[in-house]
Amino acid sequence: MGIEEFVNKSEGEWNSMRSGHSLAFKQFEEVLSHISITLLQPDDTQIKDYLKESEYSKPQIISPFKIEWSGESNWKGSDSSNDLSGCSLLIPIPSSKQEGIILRSMGYTEKIDAISNYHFISDGTIVLSTVYEQTVAEERIWFISENVRCRSSVILSLESKAILQTSFASEIKRVHKPYRE
Amino acid sequence: MGIEEFVNKSEGEWNSMRSGHSLAFKQFEEVLSHISITLLQPDDTQIKDYLKESEYSKPQIISPFKIEWSGESNWKGSDSSNDLSGCSLLIPIPSSKQEGIILRSMGYTEKIDAISNYHFISDGTIVLSTVYEQTVAEERIWFISENVRCRSSVILSLESKAILQTSFASEIKRVHKPYRE
Repeated sequence: MGIEEFVNKSEGEWNSMRSGHSLAFKQFEEVLSHISITLLQPDDTQIKDYLKESEYSKPQIISPFKIEWSGESNWKGSDSSNDLSGCSLLIPIPSSKQEGIILRSMGYTEKIDAISNYHFISDGTIVLSTVYEQTVAEERIWFISENVRCRSSVILSLESKAILQTSFASEIKRVHKPYRE
Repeated sequence: MGIEEFVNKSEGEWNSMRSGHSLAFKQFEEVLSHISITLLQPDDTQIKDYLKESEYSKPQIISPFKIEWSGESNWKGSDSSNDLSGCSLLIPIPSSKQEGIILRSMGYTEKIDAISNYHFISDGTIVLSTVYEQTVAEERIWFISENVRCRSSVILSLESKAILQTSFASEIKRVHKPYRE
């Protein structure tokens, strides 16, 4: 698996069930969301504008894409309810077939620009590692069929390396049927 | 990672948070449990008795162990509450450093004897695949630190290959402190 194949398989509309585990407090969070992944052209205006602010340029990038999500958490009234819809550009820059970086216009654990390192392991799982201002996130995404993928994450404190949270999402592709409500 | 190192790292008392996702019904299950993993001697009586009934023998096995678990589910009154405590012997029989089979005196998804195929992938994750009477289970277990491991599973219908359930557990080792209540 290379990044191009990974992005192609990921494109589409997905229903996601995500569970978060706060290890210190033994608290579960449950999130149902819709995720839309759209492949963009390298000369798409959003991508060109984003690259202008970066040190990277169009010839280096491959398969840029956009993720949009909207969800509902069972943590009513929690701060996290603010984070449950959003949109991010993701711009892969491979250094070899199996690894590289991904520029993210909005990070996964902290809502800031981020750069993830990625590599593929022997079974085709992509492993993403992202250093934020206060946390480090490791994500893994693997396909269990054409239409079902799993996504796990571990979030550590950057300073203490304590594991703050893990999460797991099961995602089912809604083929040929974009989500509209 | 080989099976011996994996079992050694797994030995101990663990607190587990497990989330189950029923994909068709979009239902979440939450389970808190205590898991105890004990390395056994190859000539332990339980192991010897189990092997007697099988086609395998002591020289083939390595690092046999016992898992005991007791848990609480948020699915009150569901049938699954019956399954939340139990005990299983696991007897690895490697065919090479990276792969082999594990005899299980009690299966993971169906409460019968089972034989799992296992192999390790490049990042040290163990992948277990078990064919039961009506289902197939794929489990993955990986360590994110010495004291924290993650465990994901996918359960498919043997007949239709439909994905019935996924689950994810975050497990923290309670070092030097066996669980007693």
